[in-house]
Amino acid sequence: MKILLLNPNMTEAVTERLAGAARLVLSPGTQLQTATAPRGFPYISSRAEAQVAGAIALEMLAERQGQHDAAIIAAFGDPGLFGARELFDVPVIGMSEAAMLTACMLGKRFGIVSFAAQMAPWYEECVESHGLMGRCAGIFCLREAFTSIIDVAAEKQEALVALAGEAVAQGADVVILAGAPLAGLAREVAAHIPVPLVDQVQAAVRQAETLAALAPLKARTGGFRRPPAKPAAGLAPELAARFEHRD
Amino acid sequence: MKILLLNPNMTEAVTERLAGAARLVLSPGTQLQTATAPRGFPYISSRAEAQVAGAIALEMLAERQGQHDAAIIAAFGDPGLFGARELFDVPVIGMSEAAMLTACMLGKRFGIVSFAAQMAPWYEECVESHGLMGRCAGIFCLREAFTSIIDVAAEKQEALVALAGEAVAQGADVVILAGAPLAGLAREVAAHIPVPLVDQVQAAVRQAETLAALAPLKARTGGFRRPPAKPAAGLAPELAARFEHRD
Amino acid sequence: MKILLLNPNMTEAVTERLAGAARLVLSPGTQLQTATAPRGFPYISSRAEAQVAGAIALEMLAERQGQHDAAIIAAFGDPGLFGARELFDVPVIGMSEAAMLTACMLGKRFGIVSFAAQMAPWYEECVESHGLMGRCAGIFCLREAFTSIIDVAAEKQEALVALAGEAVAQGADVVILAGAPLAGLAREVAAHIPVPLVDQVQAAVRQAETLAALAPLKARTGGFRRPPAKPAAGLAPELAARFEHRD
Amino acid sequence: MKILLLNPNMTEAVTERLAGAARLVLSPGTQLQTATAPRGFPYISSRAEAQVAGAIALEMLAERQGQHDAAIIAAFGDPGLFGARELFDVPVIGMSEAAMLTACMLGKRFGIVSFAAQMAPWYEECVESHGLMGRCAGIFCLREAFTSIIDVAAEKQEALVALAGEAVAQGADVVILAGAPLAGLAREVAAHIPVPLVDQVQAAVRQAETLAALAPLKARTGGFRRPPAKPAAGLAPELAARFEHRD
Amino acid sequence: MKILLLNPNMTEAVTERLAGAARLVLSPGTQLQTATAPRGFPYISSRAEAQVAGAIALEMLAERQGQHDAAIIAAFGDPGLFGARELFDVPVIGMSEAAMLTACMLGKRFGIVSFAAQMAPWYEECVESHGLMGRCAGIFCLREAFTSIIDVAAEKQEALVALAGEAVAQGADVVILAGAPLAGLAREVAAHIPVPLVDQVQAAVRQAETLAALAPLKARTGGFRRPPAKPAAGLAPELAARFEHRD
Amino acid sequence: MKILLLNPNMTEAVTERLAGAARLVLSPGTQLQTATAPRGFPYISSRAEAQVAGAIALEMLAERQGQHDAAIIAAFGDPGLFGARELFDVPVIGMSEAAMLTACMLGKRFGIVSFAAQMAPWYEECVESHGLMGRCAGIFCLREAFTSIIDVAAEKQEALVALAGEAVAQGADVVILAGAPLAGLAREVAAHIPVPLVDQVQAAVRQAETLAALAPLKARTGGFRRPPAKPAAGLAPELAARFEHRD
Repeated sequence: MKILLLNPNMTEAVTERLAGAARLVLSPGTQLQTATAPRGFPYISSRAEAQVAGAIALEMLAERQGQHDAAIIAAFGDPGLFGARELFDVPVIGMSEAAMLTACMLGKRFGIVSFAAQMAPWYEECVESHGLMGRCAGIFCLREAFTSIIDVAAEKQEALVALAGEAVAQGADVVILAGAPLAGLAREVAAHIPVPLVDQVQAAVRQAETLAALAPLKARTGGFRRPPAKPAAGLAPELAARFEHRD
Repeated sequence: MKILLLNPNMTEAVTERLAGAARLVLSPGTQLQTATAPRGFPYISSRAEAQVAGAIALEMLAERQGQHDAAIIAAFGDPGLFGARELFDVPVIGMSEAAMLTACMLGKRFGIVSFAAQMAPWYEECVESHGLMGRCAGIFCLREAFTSIIDVAAEKQEALVALAGEAVAQGADVVILAGAPLAGLAREVAAHIPVPLVDQVQAAVRQAETLAALAPLKARTGGFRRPPAKPAAGLAPELAARFEHRD
Repeated sequence: MKILLLNPNMTEAVTERLAGAARLVLSPGTQLQTATAPRGFPYISSRAEAQVAGAIALEMLAERQGQHDAAIIAAFGDPGLFGARELFDVPVIGMSEAAMLTACMLGKRFGIVSFAAQMAPWYEECVESHGLMGRCAGIFCLREAFTSIIDVAAEKQEALVALAGEAVAQGADVVILAGAPLAGLAREVAAHIPVPLVDQVQAAVRQAETLAALAPLKARTGGFRRPPAKPAAGLAPELAARFEHRD
Repeated sequence: MKILLLNPNMTEAVTERLAGAARLVLSPGTQLQTATAPRGFPYISSRAEAQVAGAIALEMLAERQGQHDAAIIAAFGDPGLFGARELFDVPVIGMSEAAMLTACMLGKRFGIVSFAAQMAPWYEECVESHGLMGRCAGIFCLREAFTSIIDVAAEKQEALVALAGEAVAQGADVVILAGAPLAGLAREVAAHIPVPLVDQVQAAVRQAETLAALAPLKARTGGFRRPPAKPAAGLAPELAARFEHRD
Repeated sequence: MKILLLNPNMTEAVTERLAGAARLVLSPGTQLQTATAPRGFPYISSRAEAQVAGAIALEMLAERQGQHDAAIIAAFGDPGLFGARELFDVPVIGMSEAAMLTACMLGKRFGIVSFAAQMAPWYEECVESHGLMGRCAGIFCLREAFTSIIDVAAEKQEALVALAGEAVAQGADVVILAGAPLAGLAREVAAHIPVPLVDQVQAAVRQAETLAALAPLKARTGGFRRPPAKPAAGLAPELAARFEHRD
Repeated sequence: MKILLLNPNMTEAVTERLAGAARLVLSPGTQLQTATAPRGFPYISSRAEAQVAGAIALEMLAERQGQHDAAIIAAFGDPGLFGARELFDVPVIGMSEAAMLTACMLGKRFGIVSFAAQMAPWYEECVESHGLMGRCAGIFCLREAFTSIIDVAAEKQEALVALAGEAVAQGADVVILAGAPLAGLAREVAAHIPVPLVDQVQAAVRQAETLAALAPLKARTGGFRRPPAKPAAGLAPELAARFEHRD
């Protein structure tokens, strides 16, 4: 079983962090492939950036068609997810989607805890787009500046634990430490947070395995069938080919 | 990793059917344990029966404490689930919960297709209790009588495929063939249904593995911590012991 | 007209407290019958306990069939209610249901005020199960320990009045003092709370009378008809008889 | 106990019909007072008419202050209800509100069945204003013309029974025959409809008794306290007096 | 193009204030007509007053039929709006409706900021009646007394700016300064509030122009067609004529 | 006042059709500017295409900064809208958003009528993203093939009128003929549809004027402020400059 872990952002160190956490829970026999965006942003923190990075995610998936059994778009916020689910034949899941659905099995309401306030509106729209607002106790973000996207998990560990406590006080039965740079943090801080934690990328890689194991057939009708062939101009070649049914 | 597949009903043949389908997708190294209710009903099809069978599920879980890493309550409708999630230390998931959350990763709306109209009100309350009505295209049940709960999947296969088609026409992006007696049917009929299918018990066993792999700590506060010790009279001994904190 | 006031818990003093408050508002000619659970818990404060106590409530109702015109399950949280509504021929109502629906006629949003924080998640699920979250201003619970379930109304009277004030500040147009041990408290503290109060058991007994007076026929189809006969093993004899249509 | 049954329309025969049905379920000792609008419309079937008739209902209530323990606005749609609930000291309930809340204790979803399609949009807004859309299986109205508002119950009895059957097929667990001219019809047709019926005015009169028995204090703060004194020009004298705090 | 700006209250100075603000954004060629209620209240701050003032708004519209291309009911809370939309042939819009819908194009959630806490419950019902609670960050009202309805905008300007800041902190992307006496205030304080402001009457007059420009045909069927002719007794003559189809 | 009408698709004839319809309702003094996508698709009919075309819309807006007072993204479905609203200083609105909000002032529920079934899932997500599902009577799409995107309005006029009738029968108080190729059709068929129609681009151009006239300040905080400067690699130069705050 081959799982593609796709980072729609350009920061390789974050891809490595994601892969490192993911490997801790891989099933025997699963191969993890990774990809980092060749263009776009170092990380995403707005809807505008997600609009662009989501399109880049589609390019990256088109370039890697046929090489994996399931793919993960590994940015919290799931840029490009629903389009990818239409366009490609194997299951594609979002890292926030996977984390939230997994959390649903551990309590009634999950709290999303992250490191930058500017992400909250975009994250909220992500929760809404999955129809999970009723399962969400809130999105809790640090308000203070951080030094580096790569080290933010270490730098803000204490503050994030405190914020998780606030999420619990406001009704979170489960906590998700959200944002790719926080991958792997759950295991380090679990003892300090009094409810279960879900590590976003660990949830994602197991959920991708689940879908690959179930091996569902691609929709041949309805809202997630592949869109009919259509001319596409000025796009990355593999993506254009996918839209034009030339692949 | 040990997963308990708990059938809260008394029909052994259904337990075997569930286990058979589950084993097809088990990860290497996972051990599947099964249990069949020693009292209660041959199968559940009403809220009244679910009230009783849910209490029996708690007894069965109490009797098997410490013997597994995660447990599945394997009746569509998830009898006793939220109480079990409070009461026990390892993850407990419901078979319908697992199927629905898995389906959410394959489309926007799932359709639930089953074999007996009398189940619909109870199933609907199950969907509501998980906050997933917004992801549900409907609950579609056959209206005709069936001969035997054990053979209903074979007897009604054609009618169920037709009903799945109706669910798709009414907006289902994914179909769940629901009810323990339909375990394993998805694989047989997948080619005849134009959207992805989710097999309930296959989803459940992979989701149970996912939670066991993530190994979340039991909630120590909030709505899913273990209830404080309390006297319990007239209950099954192991269940009373669990309520009284004597275990 | 005969109304059964059924306490699904084992504390007789609470049954007496409920009956005492109920008798203050009985219509002329109504007979109030009471019953206290012969097994189970001294009181319910979790979903796990409610799962078991709800099954016990069904046993108690089965044992008393034909002896009343309407029945009340007199624990806030309504354990076993929807199953009872399916299974029996006369109206069965829940004490929290009755309190909430009555409160709806006195304002837009009711606040639920109770004495133990651990009840909040279960109470919230009860409000949701009745589809009344949009009418609920919140569930407000004391966080401090109490000495005895029997005397908690007196012991915490002042704190409960203060908490009701908080509920009003957060938008409650009406206040329900919730939990069987608070039965009858409304009348004592009404002057100290600036919005109308609804006494849960007084509301329940009047609503049970209302249904008995309207004398609706039992559903013969749909989600609340009596479930078809089905074998039942290992249950209390009268309950098994009811499931098996031997009564 | 004195209950005012207020018909905000001008048709005396409808008031009599309402009172006749109500008297069948009055508790011993309750006095029923009736009032018919001195101006306005023969009956209400639009929002525009309800806007005017609701203001007339306030006039009628102002003229009768101090003469009853609770009042019923006896037109399905509840014209003027929330204003009345603010303005007056004793409980005021709406006939549709009472019917719907009573129906909630007999099943999950009620169906509203009425005799004129033009009422549906107004009725729907009424259901929404009570936050009960989640409990409503639909509003089902005859599309054919009727001869007289007074005799419509008899003229259309058969068609209404058939329409109730349609409501049941679409998920109604309980049926409300809605619109003042249908008062009393429930008892006549109950045997022909396979789910419980709620007679709107019988529910209303019992609910008014319930509130009178509970004797809640008038809100002294929040959204249902009496509005502060304010000058009022060009209104009926008693209503102006009520707004100006001269009563 | 002729737009009627109808103040359903009796305070001429408020009508002038509304018209003054509206004229700043009128399109070239638009004529603004104004009307002030000849009876009723100096201003509305409760549902009871809105019930009466809404009926007066219908009278005022009936008296002015055929004289304008679109009309605005210029009290926040939109008294009488839906009835007017049924009854008359040209578009009628509410001032709060126009402000909220305009705000929706500037952000996800609008905050409603006003000067008197007693308005909040009525305003909330207005937001709900437009189905816009999901777009509303809250209703924020000053709690302190004010001297005069005419001068409240100047008197409380500083406090209103502070309250708008609170609304922003609680998630408002856009702010509406609500209540006719605050018309025109937005432009004065815009620099002190860090999100876009929508002036209620400026939005209303532009939206009325928009509808007049689109010139939609009056509904000939469904929930907003003109109600069929019906006798009307004791109403203002022009309004009775409109109900009776004598105009 | 300068309004930019931006077609995020490549078909010039559709841009012209949009502009032609828009000009019929422009206010005196408004200049309409148009733009057609230089890359992408001939038209959008899936989420995948909208992901890409939305990113192209951002490029187009970046290239035209400072040249208009408000902009319209003129594809039903509003690709790129929320990102554009963050990123740019002048108001940006979506054509579907404008049509829906305008329709809200003409009735309770709008029906969306379009020419290709494959658009329905994407359109539905658009309605949801605006929080307007409660105002939507449904999305009604023709199921038959069409010859050319340019002529589809003429080719399918009769079928679209029939479908609008179906929308009305299912509760639409207002109809929106949706999809850029149907711009201008409303006026031609209004007499054949018994409820008001809203022309999508006419609504959009008037709403853009409204926002330009109100001249709201750009958000300086919260969810719609401009994202902080961030490096951007591999994007169109003007768009990169906008993200990097070099403009």
